[in-house]
Amino acid sequence: MLSMWMSDLAAASGLPVATVKFYLREGLLPPGEATGATRARYDDSHVKRLRLIRALTEVAGLRLDAVRAVLAMVDDDSRSFHQAMGSVHHRLSAGRGDASPMALAQVDALVARRGWQLYEPNPHRLALARALDALAGLDHAASDDLLDDYADAAQAVAERDVAAVGREDRVAGAEHAVVGTLLLEPVLVLLRRMAQEDASARLSEGSRKS
Amino acid sequence: MLSMWMSDLAAASGLPVATVKFYLREGLLPPGEATGATRARYDDSHVKRLRLIRALTEVAGLRLDAVRAVLAMVDDDSRSFHQAMGSVHHRLSAGRGDASPMALAQVDALVARRGWQLYEPNPHRLALARALDALAGLDHAASDDLLDDYADAAQAVAERDVAAVGREDRVAGAEHAVVGTLLLEPVLVLLRRMAQEDASARLSEGSRKS
Repeated sequence: MLSMWMSDLAAASGLPVATVKFYLREGLLPPGEATGATRARYDDSHVKRLRLIRALTEVAGLRLDAVRAVLAMVDDDSRSFHQAMGSVHHRLSAGRGDASPMALAQVDALVARRGWQLYEPNPHRLALARALDALAGLDHAASDDLLDDYADAAQAVAERDVAAVGREDRVAGAEHAVVGTLLLEPVLVLLRRMAQEDASARLSEGSRKS
Repeated sequence: MLSMWMSDLAAASGLPVATVKFYLREGLLPPGEATGATRARYDDSHVKRLRLIRALTEVAGLRLDAVRAVLAMVDDDSRSFHQAMGSVHHRLSAGRGDASPMALAQVDALVARRGWQLYEPNPHRLALARALDALAGLDHAASDDLLDDYADAAQAVAERDVAAVGREDRVAGAEHAVVGTLLLEPVLVLLRRMAQEDASARLSEGSRKS
């Protein structure tokens, strides 16, 4: 295992020394092995942890309190992959505020149509209902038909993800759950933006031609 | 058109008066019609704008500077739907930092396989490459096969979205682009989390049984 000073740790993780020290102070990065009053040595596990923190903040766009919660779950070995993924995702879907009974009923009907087994209480259900309320309030109510098409797409990638983790390691831990599922969310969103740009370019060409 | 005082405006938008005043000061909400030195009347357009701000912050999770940029595009009538959507999405994908040549090549190969027409320079390309670098750095490199499956799902919903907007209004403005595409991103992400929870529950039941 490679042993390194703070400056090498910062270089290896692509972060400024001040940022690494901040994460140490905040307890997001475990302390190194002390080699004197003010010096410590770090190893590969510190580099990997910093890469995870960086991915969670820069790629997934999480705020520091959410990063802290995700890391706490990653460090808890007592949970199965299924439990860990549920905890992480529930933490991320949690939000303030209520949803209308109409939106909640629309979500429940969707879940029933698909036969999805979900934990109760389920923060995704409430978060999704809040999103539907916001769309309806802006005269863009999402139809059941739209939700079915979205759910088809979501389920296709979700089953692929879960099967991939299952193949890899039957007792895959929480870090797999976080990395293999959470960090693919921005990938899906970015691909949708690219595909929309393409579809919209073709539509606008079509209008000009007609 | 309904005319109302600040207190009614706050009630109609579901926000505290202090928050509405903050958005006024920040210029995110246009001023009302002054009826004296310290009083003003507001109307439906203010309610709608506050609902949009609330959806952008609470549902889409945007920060205030991103909300400001999105609203500026919504208010610019000179752009077509295609241009407006491009601008909004480019603004949201923009980020700091570089990506590795390997990840950029992987994205370019994907775009070529799908025949997507994208604006150049394209911030989605860079943002996606950065996400791929982060995954690779955490020993979860995304394969071309995974990207193809994700792109299939993303393209299915993207074509649906663009076709829906096209049907609705051939000269649909920027607000359609924002609401109809941006606010459906969290819907897709939440549905994926629900579908993963279900797939993972079925996998973990399967392991217990076997």
